Amino acid sequence: MENLINENNRLIVISGSSGVGKGTLLSLLMKKFSDMYLSVSVTTRAPRGGEIHGVDYFFTSKENFKNLIDKDEFLEWSEFAGNYYGTYATAIKQALSDGKDVILEIDAKGAMQIKEKMPQAILIFILPPSVEELQSRLFKRSTESEEEIQRRLNIVKDEMKTAEDFDYQLVNDNLDETLAKLESIITAEKCQTT
Amino acid sequence: MENLINENNRLIVISGSSGVGKGTLLSLLMKKFSDMYLSVSVTTRAPRGGEIHGVDYFFTSKENFKNLIDKDEFLEWSEFAGNYYGTYATAIKQALSDGKDVILEIDAKGAMQIKEKMPQAILIFILPPSVEELQSRLFKRSTESEEEIQRRLNIVKDEMKTAEDFDYQLVNDNLDETLAKLESIITAEKCQTT
Repeated sequence: MENLINENNRLIVISGSSGVGKGTLLSLLMKKFSDMYLSVSVTTRAPRGGEIHGVDYFFTSKENFKNLIDKDEFLEWSEFAGNYYGTYATAIKQALSDGKDVILEIDAKGAMQIKEKMPQAILIFILPPSVEELQSRLFKRSTESEEEIQRRLNIVKDEMKTAEDFDYQLVNDNLDETLAKLESIITAEKCQTT
Repeated sequence: MENLINENNRLIVISGSSGVGKGTLLSLLMKKFSDMYLSVSVTTRAPRGGEIHGVDYFFTSKENFKNLIDKDEFLEWSEFAGNYYGTYATAIKQALSDGKDVILEIDAKGAMQIKEKMPQAILIFILPPSVEELQSRLFKRSTESEEEIQRRLNIVKDEMKTAEDFDYQLVNDNLDETLAKLESIITAEKCQTT
């Protein structure tokens, strides 16, 4: 698998805080890098309204998913709230061997699994504006209880710790700037000596 | 020295083939990053027509230069054609501790000396268009002797080998694109987890 990434293509993994704007960023990024392959995850959960098979997810049965796990067909997979989610390796291998960049949006644990299998993968974590700012905003607003404020701050602090394991960290306080930074990371990575 | 580079500032070292356009690229880059500090080398050679002390070089005597070597005042220095050239550490340390990015253009050997003293320095090597292209151009033109063609190709091949020790390699076949890549590298490096 290692040798599928060469001086021409990259495997880019995006993770980040919930609601931080990953989906918007990805769709804008795909417009800029039209030749990039966006990986679609496989899941056993039922489609929600408007979700399209092959676009939002590949929907499949638990039986089939477990079968694919046994055959080691996933780059990473996890179980969440009774359902399975995974990244199917074949399509990614195909895109990489076609010389394409591949991008995928998965959770932090999945990102770490990918980094283990493919150390050349580029891991990017998207964070919300800084804890200090969030803290001041939450206290100013004071619509949340102190307990709720503390709970939300703890989540962000955990995420900032998680982000330390990623190659890049972006604070999404401005969509255009974050998009420009994402583009810069991809461009710069392609200039790196391998 | 190490702790002068933090999450906010970077030390960027540019080297490259002779005549590849480093000067033009640097002056354009300085316009984009107006807050960046451009290091000026110290030399014992005499100023050439139009060269300004403090802009092109700091001109000094051999005696003073040797004195500065003894005091370990250079980040790197070298002797070339009977003259000394060096990077004075104090100004760079000052700029870094002011939180500024610092950029310097030096030869590949000097770049390696800097990387040894400051592993966090970002080394970028600018290459001319590829050997294959150069070869075909030189042969097509056929104004140079085969010996001269071979000599020039060998220089480029050596440089491509040198470039492998740098963090980034840029082939300057288009000034605007190369400038955009330089900007991307600096932007991306500032998003990297330190």
